[in-house]
Formats: sequence, C-alpha cells, structure tokens
Amino acid sequence: MATLKIPSHVPHPSEDSEQLRGAFQGWGTNEGLIISILAHRNASQRKAIRETYAQTHGEDLLKDLDKELSSDFEKAVLLWTLDPAERDAFLANQATKMLTSNNAIIMEIASTRSPLELLKAKSAYQSRFKKSLEEDVAYHTSGDIRKLLVPLVGTFRYEGDEVNMTLAKSEAKLLHDKIADKAYNHEDLIRIVTTRSKAQLNATLNHYNNAFGNVIDKDLETGSEDEYLKLLKAAIKCLTYPEKYFEELLRLAINKMGTDELALTRVVTTRAEVDLQRIAEEYQRRNSVPLDRAIDNDTSGDYQKILLALLGRED
Amino acid sequence: MATLKIPSHVPHPSEDSEQLRGAFQGWGTNEGLIISILAHRNASQRKAIRETYAQTHGEDLLKDLDKELSSDFEKAVLLWTLDPAERDAFLANQATKMLTSNNAIIMEIASTRSPLELLKAKSAYQSRFKKSLEEDVAYHTSGDIRKLLVPLVGTFRYEGDEVNMTLAKSEAKLLHDKIADKAYNHEDLIRIVTTRSKAQLNATLNHYNNAFGNVIDKDLETGSEDEYLKLLKAAIKCLTYPEKYFEELLRLAINKMGTDELALTRVVTTRAEVDLQRIAEEYQRRNSVPLDRAIDNDTSGDYQKILLALLGRED
Repeated sequence: MATLKIPSHVPHPSEDSEQLRGAFQGWGTNEGLIISILAHRNASQRKAIRETYAQTHGEDLLKDLDKELSSDFEKAVLLWTLDPAERDAFLANQATKMLTSNNAIIMEIASTRSPLELLKAKSAYQSRFKKSLEEDVAYHTSGDIRKLLVPLVGTFRYEGDEVNMTLAKSEAKLLHDKIADKAYNHEDLIRIVTTRSKAQLNATLNHYNNAFGNVIDKDLETGSEDEYLKLLKAAIKCLTYPEKYFEELLRLAINKMGTDELALTRVVTTRAEVDLQRIAEEYQRRNSVPLDRAIDNDTSGDYQKILLALLGRED
Repeated sequence: MATLKIPSHVPHPSEDSEQLRGAFQGWGTNEGLIISILAHRNASQRKAIRETYAQTHGEDLLKDLDKELSSDFEKAVLLWTLDPAERDAFLANQATKMLTSNNAIIMEIASTRSPLELLKAKSAYQSRFKKSLEEDVAYHTSGDIRKLLVPLVGTFRYEGDEVNMTLAKSEAKLLHDKIADKAYNHEDLIRIVTTRSKAQLNATLNHYNNAFGNVIDKDLETGSEDEYLKLLKAAIKCLTYPEKYFEELLRLAINKMGTDELALTRVVTTRAEVDLQRIAEEYQRRNSVPLDRAIDNDTSGDYQKILLALLGRED
C-alpha cells in the first residue's frame, strides 16, 4: 500500500507547471508550494507536469529544480520527481560508479522491483547511459559478488503464482545441504535465489523452515561481516519479505549517529507509491515508534516536510 | 535479408483460413495448397489466419495441422506457422528437457536474436510454461556451461551502436591474456561475451585481431571437443557473424550421412523472415553450390517443397 496522498481534485498539468514556475521566480524559492504540488502527484501526473513544463518553457523541470534547491531537500525532490524507471536507472548507475559504488543498492533494485519494473528500469538505463545495466554491474564487480549480482539483475523472473511443490522440497534440501557445508557461494544456491520466481522461492523457504526447523536467515547468521554473505541474506529478504528489508534499512538509517539521509531519501521516494504503508507498519511493530514520528525527530526543514508529505502525514 | 516471398495481393485472413480448412477435408490432405498459403505469409499474416481460424472453427489451426500432416513436413509446417516468439519459446523449452536437451540451441537463440526478440521469446516462454527460461536453463545445466548460458540468456543487451574504444582495447587485451593462459572459462572472459553489446564486442574483437594478429576464433582452436569451449566459440560467432554460424550449421546438417532434418528445419523456419538470403550467399561462397540446390538434392516430397518455398525459390 502506498502512502502517497493525491487530492480529490487534481489541477491540470499546465496549471501545476505554471505554479511551479512561479515558485522559482521572484525573491527566493517557494519550497512549500513545490512540496504541496509534487509530493501529492503520482508518477503519471508528475510525468505530465514535466512534459508540459518542457513544452511551455523549453527547460527540463528537473534542471530548474536542481538550480533552485539544495542539499538533502534537493536530492529528495529530484529523486521523487523522476519517473520510477528513470529513478531506478539513475540509482543503479550511481551504484556502479567508482566513487559511489554500492552493491547493496543494485541488489535492492534487482530484488524488490517486479520483473516488469526491473525490465523498464533496464530499458531506461540503456536509453540514458547507452549501455546495459548488466554489463556495468558485471564490469564493476568480481568473484562471488559478481556471481550473485549478474544473474540477480539479468533474470527476467516468472511472476505468476504457480508453484512446483516437489521442486520446492528438493531445492529446500539442496539449500540446507549447502548451508550445512558452509558452501554459501555454491552455484546451485545462487541459481535458486537468482532465477526462481518469488512464489517458488517462498514455497522452497517455507519448506526449508518446516523440514529443518530454522528459517534460512537464521542458518545464514554466521557472525561474518563478509559482503557477499550480507548481500545474499539481504537478497533473500528482499525477494520474500521486502517490507522487513526496508524496515531494517530505515531503522539503521535513522538510529545512526547522524542520520543516513541517502538511504532514508531512497526508501521514502522509491516506496511511497508502492508499499510504504506496510513498511511503516513493520517499522512501528519493530521499534514501537511510528515511522513518521521517528523521521520527524530525526530531520528538519523542507527535507523533513517532503518526507512527511510522502509518508501521507497531514500537516 | 529475408527469403520469404509474399504475393502482391494477399487474400483476407478469412479466405486463407477457409482454404486451409478445405485442404484438410475430403479424401487426403492437400499439402500443396497448405504450402502455397502458409509458406507465403509473414508472421503477422499467419497470426491473423490462426486467429480467424480459431474464431470460425473453434479449433487451433496448429492442432489441425498436427492431425493432418506427418514427419519432417509436419515439423516444418508447425514450426514455421508459430509466431517467432512462441517458436523460440518452444525450441528453447525442448532444449532444456531431459531427453531433447541441447545447449547449442539455447546458445543459438540467446545469441542470434535481437535483445527485444529474446525478451519476447522469454515472455512467451513464461506465458506458455508458467516459469522462466532462466530458471530452466540454470536448472538443467551446471559448471562452466551454466556459467556461460545463464548470463547469455539473462542479459538484456544494449542494442545501440555506441562503442567505447578504450574499453574495447583493454578488454581485447584481457581476452588475449586469458586465452594465452588457456583460462577459457575465466569469469571476465565470460562476462565480456555475455554482457557487452554486439557493437562493443565487435569492436573488441576487431582490436584483438589488429593487436594480436589472429582472429579470436583461431586462438580458441584447441583441438578440444570440450562442449563448453564449442559453445563459447559458437556464441562468439553468433554474436558477431550469425550468417557464418548458420552456414556452418546448414553445411554440417546437409553433408551428414543422413541429413540432420531437425537442424535444417530449424534454420530455414527461424531465418526465412530474417536473414536467410545472406546465409544462402554465405553458403554458396563456402560450398560453391547454391543452398537451394543443396537442399533440393538432399530432401524430397512435401518437406522439400516447403523448404524451397521458404527459401524463395519459384516453382
């Protein structure tokens, strides 16, 4: 469930576009007006505003926002305003670059998006960067991490509900055997995680739990801080229980000495139209504090205002 | 260039559909009529005929063809009549099954189709088999062959012409170093072959040839009959020079003691609408015999007739 709140009467895109243009003019920028418009429009409405703005003013709205805004607020507005596929392409590209390299973000995008969303992100990546996401991920990784991330990004998973229970049982046993042998990077273990449909993987892990008495996540608790193992565990969580993954990400981002704004911004902007409501419920269950209050305490200014608006909190 | 010949006046799908229905009725089947219609319609025209046939007679045209025809002729008509994406899905699925397993066919489909055609084949695979091509390929392979085929099938390659020459040079050297060390299954070698765009790979291999004095194919001539190495070489050929790959396949299929009808049928039906003209030119150059004459000498009956019709040879 999304947290995004859209007014019952949405102005015509040309009206929104003119209001935004006005917010940039005169003395100072009207951040409140920008939030009141953009943080209450869905992806297709924002797209229509960007198109109208470009036609009317011959400028990309994103470029003008970039000029007018700054710091964390700017990053949140820009990420949010982007079309979801373009946003994923942008985030994934940043994550493959030398200085901002981040394998966890690639894993997150590949594992939490639907097969069709991932495909659209890959198309947007090619349009913008003139190369494929797969080649960039393969190029900037090596060893076990490459073995995990390349098929994770590459596979166009089956999205249906059909489950093969015989297979679920045999692959649960296979996973258990490999984990018992500490063969966490075994090719069959990687194959199962990276190619099976989410429904099939779920059936396999349920059988794992039933047959061997532990959830797989517990059996993968080795105390090791090995990056590969952390990515593998996170991928399994993303594929089977994404709201738990995002809850944990938010918890760590907020409770850090000095908030991790990049992670906080990413989760709120990428999930507000998808499942941020469920993530917030998970957050409250795990932290005994509502997510909006935690964010309220931890942030300030316009940055705080846009995050809370995307969380659906009324002023 | 395609070899398929379509008449200047194409009858309405309902007329074709009724003619085909007529060909099935009465004493015996009118194979000539079936060839004269289906072997002279393109994919969208065949699709329209199938749809009209299903609406009018409540039967799938393919099922009726299956009932009426037999042996090699039947296989050729059925494969040809299928929509290209469905046909690839069918061929790939056969190739992952225990008894008809054939890694070369999976390699061929993954490497010779355009990125969008491969994607459509993967979607058709999911619609028909309720699972992904990636999971089936990964499941039925292991070791080096899995390492090669899974990203080959999975990657949604970039299709544009942009080439990074600095990268082409560094990756040509990398390929040369690995081959000099006989590390044919090195992960970087597999990464380059399976993820780079066809244009980029071509630039890399041209630089390889310029800088090291041999085409890569020559350096991979080890005299070994290892299946992995054969697949790797074939994939490189498919990605950079598909008509040479298909010429060789046809040459071996035709010159065999007892023609390899499966390969012959597959090449003619999958390429007639794509590049069979260029494959035929390559065939003549290499064998000093026109392809249609070689097929004429090697086949007979209705099977011969449909192959020659798809090759564009007038009666």
